Amino acid sequence: MAPRTYSAGVVLFEGFTVLDAYGPIQAFWAAFEPNPGGPPTRLYTISTVALQAGPVKSGEGPVTVADYGLDNAPAFDILLIPGGGGTRPGVNNEELLAGIIAAAAKAEYVTTVCTGAALLARGGGLDGRRATSNKMAWEWVTSQGPAVEWVRRARWVEDGNVVTSSGVSAGIDMALGVIARLHGVEAAERSAKLMEYIWNRDPDNDPFV
Amino acid sequence: MAPRTYSAGVVLFEGFTVLDAYGPIQAFWAAFEPNPGGPPTRLYTISTVALQAGPVKSGEGPVTVADYGLDNAPAFDILLIPGGGGTRPGVNNEELLAGIIAAAAKAEYVTTVCTGAALLARGGGLDGRRATSNKMAWEWVTSQGPAVEWVRRARWVEDGNVVTSSGVSAGIDMALGVIARLHGVEAAERSAKLMEYIWNRDPDNDPFV
Repeated sequence: MAPRTYSAGVVLFEGFTVLDAYGPIQAFWAAFEPNPGGPPTRLYTISTVALQAGPVKSGEGPVTVADYGLDNAPAFDILLIPGGGGTRPGVNNEELLAGIIAAAAKAEYVTTVCTGAALLARGGGLDGRRATSNKMAWEWVTSQGPAVEWVRRARWVEDGNVVTSSGVSAGIDMALGVIARLHGVEAAERSAKLMEYIWNRDPDNDPFV
Repeated sequence: MAPRTYSAGVVLFEGFTVLDAYGPIQAFWAAFEPNPGGPPTRLYTISTVALQAGPVKSGEGPVTVADYGLDNAPAFDILLIPGGGGTRPGVNNEELLAGIIAAAAKAEYVTTVCTGAALLARGGGLDGRRATSNKMAWEWVTSQGPAVEWVRRARWVEDGNVVTSSGVSAGIDMALGVIARLHGVEAAERSAKLMEYIWNRDPDNDPFV
């Protein structure tokens, strides 16, 4: 039986952190199933989505073009919410929060990187869940979700279909963890090898706590 | 004396690999010098450049907008050339190679990630230099530069002002190495910490050879 392909939708907003988004994008894209005598089967497709389709400026400067607006995007199997300085105004942007929560409700899995957890938390999407975020902005992020069970020492945290990760590069480790969950650890290892990435595969191994 | 700020220009072309570009972008951007009682001084500025300014589609799907065309870009202190599937047609794109070589000639430092080395090598920019590239495309990349002294076991290789790195995530380690060289190891460590990234700081430590 052919392996299932998952669609990943990456939420963009002004001031998102590029590695929060592009680390997991690379990990998902690099996951494949080998086919004897044929080209490998890619296991994930990648789309970007923002309040409106079109250019979105990152915190680091480079601009990414969002493929979809949140109001007309298809349902994604996996929603990924990156962090960045843009989450500070973001938690007060009702339209952005509503769009994220609506997209999350349509997704099978919802994932966050770094301060992306603040957006999901502020929208109520982490209430009653175990979750983590980056350590440098810990007090601010956790204040956005008083009903969240915040886990400080964690590279990433899985609670049902919601997976949250620590700062920036932790998103790569988390994405590989999601790949391992959905397609087996060998698929995650193939992705890491293709990226020449040393996977921190233990979600409890958090050197930055 | 205020620390010097370096401009980094990242070359984009259709089919570039996103993490090759955005890993080093994140590392450079996250490098700062603390100022007692004031905001930190950022040590790098980031621009993107392609044959023409405007949208450039990556190998993974997402589109980045190039800030400049190669013909009218300013000189960058650091030029960064990512790899990706787009290097396969790229080595036969005379206009792209000429633009890269001209930009490299104006740069103080020239850096490549993964198969980005193939573009620089094919343009003659690595002749007589020690250089490395990723391991999965090793035979193809090295065939693009017969006058290059290819170093197979290396996370990254410095030869004067030219710094080449292995596959994909090795670019992050290399960028941190460049930061250590230009601004000291503490600046690189601060960048890695901000990214919650476990820096492989030994250029000879190559687990993927």
